[in-house]
Amino acid sequence: MSFSPLVERLMESLRVLPGVGPKTAQRMALHLLERDREGGRRLTAVLGEALEAVGYCRRCRTLTEEEVCTLCRSTRRDERVLCVVESPADMLAIEEAGGYQGQYFVLHGHLSPLDGVGPEDIGLDRLETRLAEEPIEELILATNPTVEGEATAHYIASQLQGRPIRLSRLAYGVPMGGELEYVDGGTLSRAFLGRQPFAGD
Amino acid sequence: MSFSPLVERLMESLRVLPGVGPKTAQRMALHLLERDREGGRRLTAVLGEALEAVGYCRRCRTLTEEEVCTLCRSTRRDERVLCVVESPADMLAIEEAGGYQGQYFVLHGHLSPLDGVGPEDIGLDRLETRLAEEPIEELILATNPTVEGEATAHYIASQLQGRPIRLSRLAYGVPMGGELEYVDGGTLSRAFLGRQPFAGD
Repeated sequence: MSFSPLVERLMESLRVLPGVGPKTAQRMALHLLERDREGGRRLTAVLGEALEAVGYCRRCRTLTEEEVCTLCRSTRRDERVLCVVESPADMLAIEEAGGYQGQYFVLHGHLSPLDGVGPEDIGLDRLETRLAEEPIEELILATNPTVEGEATAHYIASQLQGRPIRLSRLAYGVPMGGELEYVDGGTLSRAFLGRQPFAGD
Repeated sequence: MSFSPLVERLMESLRVLPGVGPKTAQRMALHLLERDREGGRRLTAVLGEALEAVGYCRRCRTLTEEEVCTLCRSTRRDERVLCVVESPADMLAIEEAGGYQGQYFVLHGHLSPLDGVGPEDIGLDRLETRLAEEPIEELILATNPTVEGEATAHYIASQLQGRPIRLSRLAYGVPMGGELEYVDGGTLSRAFLGRQPFAGD
């Protein structure tokens, strides 16, 4: 025995959500149907609207329903620095950390030839155009410190050979507040290689 | 800085789902918008349809888009036994455990005067009608072994005083496969009170 066809289909479709297995999907479906149909209707409406209206910012490619996102429209950001990230979530994390005042460019992924993800798929042609049209002096390659992220950063760097643009990468090292004992070897050795003169202030 | 208004609204509305906090809602919203718009559209469609079409079975009150659910329409179920449960999930759990061949009645909750949940709200009037119209000989009160579940079971029992209907409650005791060491005191003492002659087969 199971639930009625439609209820079963609802549970099935809830599983498109990341980290939602059969049990959680069942709990969600029953919760919406038994306790919060109003919230469910709101979710249907907003999700439908978002899937239709939300696209990429024409300038930085972050997710937005506007043609150009708020950050790109802001006049208080430094136009000479551009930070390349893999996802809008990375962009938000950097903004919340604070301190960075430049612009962004979102790849929505990383190069992955095996999965057929090439330069155009992550908007590198668009990045080229921006570098040509805007007074950008420094490009910060803030892709993830993973094999794919590294490869993508190196590819972008190789494409900019000989351009009058300073390229930089986020510093590798031990995370603040972390205990050396628990830091992985790779990170630790990178931290040694990248060691800085002690300011001692 | 945050995401665009519409993306923020999507994250907000995803929080109607049980167990979904801000971080999970963000992950879900970005996943749907960046990686699975098709799945998102399916979810919108099915959820919308379910919220409109799914109601209660006229006979047992479980969730179904049909007027009478499959189980109630089945001719292979014993019409003389009726099991009262708090939710469709409990009904499914009992069916999956197997062995029970009778009918069901779903309360969709329990009596809770403080929250203004009275007999009609959990369909007890409907239960009365069934008991009057159907050849029911035994009523199994399978509400949860919680204070509210107990109270609800006792209320139903009190309403059926003097009727020629056998009333029963699920057995309390130590869970199968559980270790006594970890069973709570209340359960343990109920297990002693309800001890059975040892069959020794």
